[in-house]
Parts: sequence; structure tokens; C-alpha cells
Amino acid sequence: MSVLVVGSVALDSVETPFGKADEVIGGSATYFSASASHQTPVQLVGVVGNDYPVERLQALADRGVDLAGLEHMDGESFRWRGRYRHDLNSAETLETRLGVFSHFRPKIPVQFRNAEYVFLGNIDPRLQLEVLKQVEKPRLVACDTMNFWIESRRDDLLELLGHVDLITLNDGEARQLTERSNLVHAARWILERGPTTVVIKKGEHGAFMFTANSVFFAPAYPLESVFDPTGAGDSFAGGFIGYLARTGDLSEASMRRAVVHGSAMGSFVVEGFSITRLLEITRADIVRRVAEFHELVSFDKTIDA
Amino acid sequence: MSVLVVGSVALDSVETPFGKADEVIGGSATYFSASASHQTPVQLVGVVGNDYPVERLQALADRGVDLAGLEHMDGESFRWRGRYRHDLNSAETLETRLGVFSHFRPKIPVQFRNAEYVFLGNIDPRLQLEVLKQVEKPRLVACDTMNFWIESRRDDLLELLGHVDLITLNDGEARQLTERSNLVHAARWILERGPTTVVIKKGEHGAFMFTANSVFFAPAYPLESVFDPTGAGDSFAGGFIGYLARTGDLSEASMRRAVVHGSAMGSFVVEGFSITRLLEITRADIVRRVAEFHELVSFDKTIDA
Repeated sequence: MSVLVVGSVALDSVETPFGKADEVIGGSATYFSASASHQTPVQLVGVVGNDYPVERLQALADRGVDLAGLEHMDGESFRWRGRYRHDLNSAETLETRLGVFSHFRPKIPVQFRNAEYVFLGNIDPRLQLEVLKQVEKPRLVACDTMNFWIESRRDDLLELLGHVDLITLNDGEARQLTERSNLVHAARWILERGPTTVVIKKGEHGAFMFTANSVFFAPAYPLESVFDPTGAGDSFAGGFIGYLARTGDLSEASMRRAVVHGSAMGSFVVEGFSITRLLEITRADIVRRVAEFHELVSFDKTIDA
Repeated sequence: MSVLVVGSVALDSVETPFGKADEVIGGSATYFSASASHQTPVQLVGVVGNDYPVERLQALADRGVDLAGLEHMDGESFRWRGRYRHDLNSAETLETRLGVFSHFRPKIPVQFRNAEYVFLGNIDPRLQLEVLKQVEKPRLVACDTMNFWIESRRDDLLELLGHVDLITLNDGEARQLTERSNLVHAARWILERGPTTVVIKKGEHGAFMFTANSVFFAPAYPLESVFDPTGAGDSFAGGFIGYLARTGDLSEASMRRAVVHGSAMGSFVVEGFSITRLLEITRADIVRRVAEFHELVSFDKTIDA
């Protein structure tokens, strides 16, 4: 079953301790699509300016990403410029130029409206709500958000929570949204407001998945070379939602495997700039990495305790 | 099989967002012993001044901690005063008064010298080396250390690494010692200098265990109420080494279970001030927490990937 993603399609310029990349393709919808496309067909909705090197998105189309919902608008594309210091866990934003993205009003093509799996990438919660009015009856709606919307669109975000099944956000955002420093309390606060599943991402420290009666944790893979953390969260979401869309299995056991698939995709994307690594890897690489995750945390609780 | 621990026995005054404790019993040897005593008999070597409320250590003796190696010296006991802010991950030291601890020269009682399991708590590496000269032929020697010794006793610490099987240190210390920011690289650097096992503790973010050809990760348990993080690392070490001493099994599978036992003990101790919680819990509580850890990370990597 295919998955619909609505989000940004950007040009990123990134500096890390290991190198620089200028105007490479990025954005939440881009990373999500590249990642999810390893699992299932993807329908992308976003906007680019007439300066966007759309030919570079052909690699996504070749992988089964339907770009019919990519709007072309007169003006400049969304550009982000950022830097990571030696602590690769947090980006320093040097410049954000929204360009045509500031006029983005997502229009879901007719042929996408019966999507069963929907991921609302990190955009204005008002737009995320507008998307939900245009889709018919999805089986699973997931969303992401960020500090900027938590501050400036709190009411809309709270309204959105009542309409999504699942939210992914990082630990800082969870604390900011809920005003709870303890993540168990923060997760419960969010669960009480709509979503049945809350995924709290902790970057290099892994991710928690909370439901009303379970907690699951997947570490980040201990990589020897983290090259560029940009897009890790959206690649995580792509692996996660893509896995659920492909299997159609929303059981707890399947959700756990989905989190690990998300973590695997997050661990690949940071090995290179932009979506480079996501385009290189194969299904076999993913299966191997998932097995490595299993080995990483496995222990036998034999009754000698 | 009993375990020998050499370390500090202190009086701690701690302030957290949730309360205050004045002059409660603390110190690395104290936390380690209280924790390990749930697994196996413990032999403690340390020093206190004549102002120490030794009657409060009776609870440890009652749990099978042999205090024959606790030296009583004229002078003040080691006192530490610290504070934790809302981010409970790092302590702010307000005052350290070493007192008699600054004259500590560990003397291992004759009846302790054939110890098979030895834990060298966080003391001057020169003293840790002196301890090793006094024990016969331990099966497993583990040590802890801290930033202060990494700065001031680097050469001694490097010498010590050549004589221990296992080291526990936190992520910041591992980076400082090895001058490697990547933890996989840091662990490898240490493994090349002696220990066959390196445990890197990340506080609320869990712990890694590295050997030459394996990596294991155990998360910290997602607690609803972390009350006072003091002693978490030494309680971890107590559960870890205590488990190995009790089972006598140093296989990879057993080491993994030992890490989880360590994490379980770390998760209990932070639920109260001082060693309070370690004295309250039972073996059944530990077995239950270990099972919760298992549930927390378990996933079935079915071949639908």
C-alpha cells in the first residue's frame, strides 16, 4: 500500500566537521520519500520554485516516488543552510529562506486522496489540518512537528493532535510541547490528546515508542562514521511508516519492527550528505542492519536471576 | 563467589528538584556494595573518619557486606555536597572535603587477598595499582575512573589499563581519555590498551558494552520518577560485577545479562536518596525489572523485511 507524504522539498547547504555540501536536495518530504521508497510506493506533495534542479528528483521517481503532487511555483525554492560542530547531535541554522514554501497550500491530487497511510511532514499545523480535509479515510495518519510550530501555532497543533494516530517528535520538542521534563510523563500528556502512538526521537540516543500500555526503545546504531545528521528524523519516519504501509500490519509487534526499520534508515542516511546513501543501499542492506540492531540489544533473561 | 570493592565511603549532601538530603551515607564503595549484595557477598575496603556514623553501615553488614577492610582514621570523613538541576543528567559539585580520604592507602585484609572478583572504585589510579599488588590472582578485575584522574594521573591510568579486564566510564570520560568523539572509536582505543571489555555509561541514555568483536546496548529504564541520580554508576557496577561473581559465568551471554542487571540496579537507586531503595528492594523486584528491560527492547525480526 502506498504512503502519502506532504512536506518540504528544499535545497540544503551543510557544513559538518567532515565536509561541506552546497545546494544538495533536502527537505522533509524528500528524505521521507527516499527512505520509504525502500518499502513501498510513495506519493509526494510539496512545492518548489522555478530554480529547483528537478532533474535531481528523477532518482526518487525511479524508485517509485510519484511526483504528481509536486507543485512548481514562480519564485525561489526553500533553502536551508546549517552547520554541525563536533557534537553532531544538534544543527546550528545559519540561514533559512522559505521562498515559495511560505506560500505553500498543499493540494492533494485526486488520485492521492484515498491514501491509506499519510505522513504530515514538519510544516505549519494549519496546513497539516488542511491536508487531512482533502484525504478520504486514511488508516493511519502520522505527523511530525518542530519547536517553531510549538511556539507559534500551539492551538493549531493541539487541534491537529486530535486528528492523528501517531506523532513523531524529538525529546526537546516533547518537553517543550508538554512542559514535562520526564519523557514518560510527556508521552502520556500527548497520548491523552489524541494520538494512540507517540514516538520520541533522541537523535544519537535512540527512540522511544509509547502507547497507552507499552513502551518500546530502539537505540541509534553505534556508527563509526556519522557524516551528516541532516534528515535523520525524516528518514526514520520514512522507514517507520513505509514499513507499516508495506506490511499493513499495525499490531504492537509490527510497530516495534517498524521503529527498528526507521532506526535503520536513520543510521544509513547520516553516512553521507543529502539522500546519497538512501539511493545506494539495497533491501539486503536494510535486512542486515535490522539484524544488527537485534544483535545489539538481545539478551537472554535466563532464570538464573 | 564474593566480590572485593575498594573505594570511597562518604557522607553526601544532595539537593535535587525533588528534595534535599543532608549527610547521608554515600561513596563509590558504599553504593557498589549495597547493589552487589543483592547478588553475592561483598568485601569492602575503604576509610572513614572518627566522625562517621558507622552504625548506619550496619544495614550493609546485615546484607552480607564484610566491613573488615573499613579503616577508621583520626580526622574528618570524606564529604561531598552537590546539586542537580532539572536536567538530572549531571551533578554540580558544590563542595568536596576529602578529609581522611586524602590519606587513604588501601590495605587489603589477608582474608580478602584471594578475591576472584575485584572492583576498583573511582580513586587515584596509583592506589588502584597498589590494590592489585595486594591481591593474588583475581579472575576478573574491573575499574572505574573520572575526569579528575584522566587529567591529573593520565600515565598511571594508562598503566592501570594494562592490568584490568574491564573498565566502566561515562561517555564524557571516554571521550576525554581517548580524545575520540565517536564512542566506537573511543572504545576501540581503550580495548587496544588492555581491557577486554569496555562499558561506556551514558546516564539516562543507557550503556554500551564493547568487546573486540561485539557491541551490546542496554537503555536506561524510562522511569517516571528519577529522584536523585547520585550513585547510579556505582550501583550499575555493583549489579554488573555482582551478577558475574554470583554466576561465575564470563561468557558474552552472561556479560549481557550482567549489564542489564547493572542497569536494573541503576534504575532502582535513583528512585530515592542515598542507598535507601537498594535496601528496600528484593530479588523478586530485580527479576521483574530485568524482565521489563527485556520487554522494553524486544522485537521479532521476522523475515518480512
